[in-house]
Amino acid sequence: MFDFTITARNYRARTGIFTTPHGDLLTPVFAPVGTQATVKTLTPEHLQDINASLVLSNTYHLYLRPGDELVRDMGGLHKFMQWHRPMLTDSGGFQVFSLAQTRKIDDDGVTFKSHIDGSTHRFTPEKSISIQENLGADVIMAFDECSDPNDHAYSKLAMERTHRWAERSLKAQTRPDQALFGIVQGGVQTDLRATSAKFIASLNTPGIAIGGLSVGAASLKKKETLDIVTPLLPENKPRYLMGVGTPEDLINGVARGIDIFDCVLPTRLARHHSAFAPEGRLNLMNATFARDEKPIDETCDCYTCITFTRAYIRHLIVAKELLAGTLISIHNLRALIRLMEQIRIYITDGTFESHIPELLNQWANNAKRIVNG
Amino acid sequence: MFDFTITARNYRARTGIFTTPHGDLLTPVFAPVGTQATVKTLTPEHLQDINASLVLSNTYHLYLRPGDELVRDMGGLHKFMQWHRPMLTDSGGFQVFSLAQTRKIDDDGVTFKSHIDGSTHRFTPEKSISIQENLGADVIMAFDECSDPNDHAYSKLAMERTHRWAERSLKAQTRPDQALFGIVQGGVQTDLRATSAKFIASLNTPGIAIGGLSVGAASLKKKETLDIVTPLLPENKPRYLMGVGTPEDLINGVARGIDIFDCVLPTRLARHHSAFAPEGRLNLMNATFARDEKPIDETCDCYTCITFTRAYIRHLIVAKELLAGTLISIHNLRALIRLMEQIRIYITDGTFESHIPELLNQWANNAKRIVNG
Repeated sequence: MFDFTITARNYRARTGIFTTPHGDLLTPVFAPVGTQATVKTLTPEHLQDINASLVLSNTYHLYLRPGDELVRDMGGLHKFMQWHRPMLTDSGGFQVFSLAQTRKIDDDGVTFKSHIDGSTHRFTPEKSISIQENLGADVIMAFDECSDPNDHAYSKLAMERTHRWAERSLKAQTRPDQALFGIVQGGVQTDLRATSAKFIASLNTPGIAIGGLSVGAASLKKKETLDIVTPLLPENKPRYLMGVGTPEDLINGVARGIDIFDCVLPTRLARHHSAFAPEGRLNLMNATFARDEKPIDETCDCYTCITFTRAYIRHLIVAKELLAGTLISIHNLRALIRLMEQIRIYITDGTFESHIPELLNQWANNAKRIVNG
Repeated sequence: MFDFTITARNYRARTGIFTTPHGDLLTPVFAPVGTQATVKTLTPEHLQDINASLVLSNTYHLYLRPGDELVRDMGGLHKFMQWHRPMLTDSGGFQVFSLAQTRKIDDDGVTFKSHIDGSTHRFTPEKSISIQENLGADVIMAFDECSDPNDHAYSKLAMERTHRWAERSLKAQTRPDQALFGIVQGGVQTDLRATSAKFIASLNTPGIAIGGLSVGAASLKKKETLDIVTPLLPENKPRYLMGVGTPEDLINGVARGIDIFDCVLPTRLARHHSAFAPEGRLNLMNATFARDEKPIDETCDCYTCITFTRAYIRHLIVAKELLAGTLISIHNLRALIRLMEQIRIYITDGTFESHIPELLNQWANNAKRIVNG
């Protein structure tokens, strides 16, 4: 279980097969986010149709609602949400630390208030693992502390706590059928990242996550941080860059040896009428599209693109029809999954490194909204 | 085109085949409502999967947004929304008359204000037909006036106007590939309904609609009205009972010779967490269902019922996930479509009349919400 076989390399980029109890993942892989045991507005059938393989769900949210014990009693997360391919849960750490106003951290754990009803709760490494064992994802995370990446003193403190918590998380694990990943922290501080990479690598977990780069870190700093971290990680373990997923981040991450990504971006953009397209990100509410008979992306093979015009999707948006979010979510997720499929082919062909400028250029306009389409 | 072949009868109930440019409809048929060129929260794939055959869309809404000329220029309603089976549009009359505060009726037509932006518009029979020709549904409606069904004086006035408008609608029609139905009005006034049925029958339209019974008419009055109207209609034309669609209404309507139904009820209930089930209508938000591992309906063959538990759907509702509305809509629509499939079998077998008490009993609890499941 949890074998990771690298089938091809191109400079630091790798493509391979990560074996999990719910099937093999072809890496590099992009995971859609299903925070509350659902990828917003999509059915599991939609996810299968776009060739999604790994789905992430959030420990903090599921612990609060419907409760991890309920999910366990319903047969676990896969059965509950009827997603029978691999799943990953985070540790709850990131979400809890995001509740800046209402949480108190000590060396043992974190006390926080629910965003739903204000009730008080406490996470420790042991509690996080217990929740994740109840949820039953294939890949689970050690409990960690995210810091302001630009604050060296705090990043050091959080990193040291993250290391102690990683050890406690490993001790707390009882299920052999879940791959528990340690998490490298250290903000954008090069010395701390190196220390953390070496420490987490020494724990010999079946994979290694890199946390703390999804918010507050500039794009250049992200690349520099990965340049320090990945060379210090074992080659034969999958590497997961947590919560990072603009198209540019994916390309740059793969180039630096990352294997697994997740991000809410494609589905969140979709709910705000924004779609990845060859000419750049489209705001499909724009009147420009009122009579546009083209699909969002003529090169895309998703249900949305082979079926509907931009004009129709724009009508749905203007008429406040929820189907718009569903259709754009299908496309945006498929766009990133296709990007990863393409990248895997390029790595296998040995041409990924030479395609990077073209890929970055192709996706450059998707970083910003194009107002007039 | 628009042949209607009755293949079996059982007392007044009939089953048959109504031929349209987008395929044959097996009657009796229940049509999901896609007001704004989308059955709310569902893709056309979902509708095909539940064996929907006829979809209704609303002239008033599409005229205002995105505009009937835009729909025409995009290839018509079928192509625009990618529904390639038969479609029906109403005349806009019902919606306009619902805008009680802002509309002014005269003998020539109706002036009204848009519910979207308050702008002033005018519908006449000629305008309604022109819009419906731009939309391009297979079955279209004459422009009519709905009255308070219990007000005899107003119902007489509205009926007489409806008759004059039906003649004008027929004169205005230019497309031969749309079946234009005349509409019987007259409230719940037996004398008026008889007059109207005879007059509309005399127009020799390819089908006949019965309007004015979807709101404000008691269940008993609906049945009495149908008992007067349908015997006065030609046998060889399909009969469409507009906007009526509780399970009880469907059963009673078929028993009185109705062939076509539509109603927003199944999808509207779904968005309010209410599902048709063997034990009666379920409010799936109820805590009773938190750990209920059964599907909504164990006898149902829809994607929702073969895939998800009540516990999961309840979680989606509580977590305010839109997927809940999609999943319950799939089931509620499938439930009524299955009911019609069953009714067609019973009529063919000659056993429909004897099954009526059982069917009414089976669906009786679905008329009211069962609070504790």
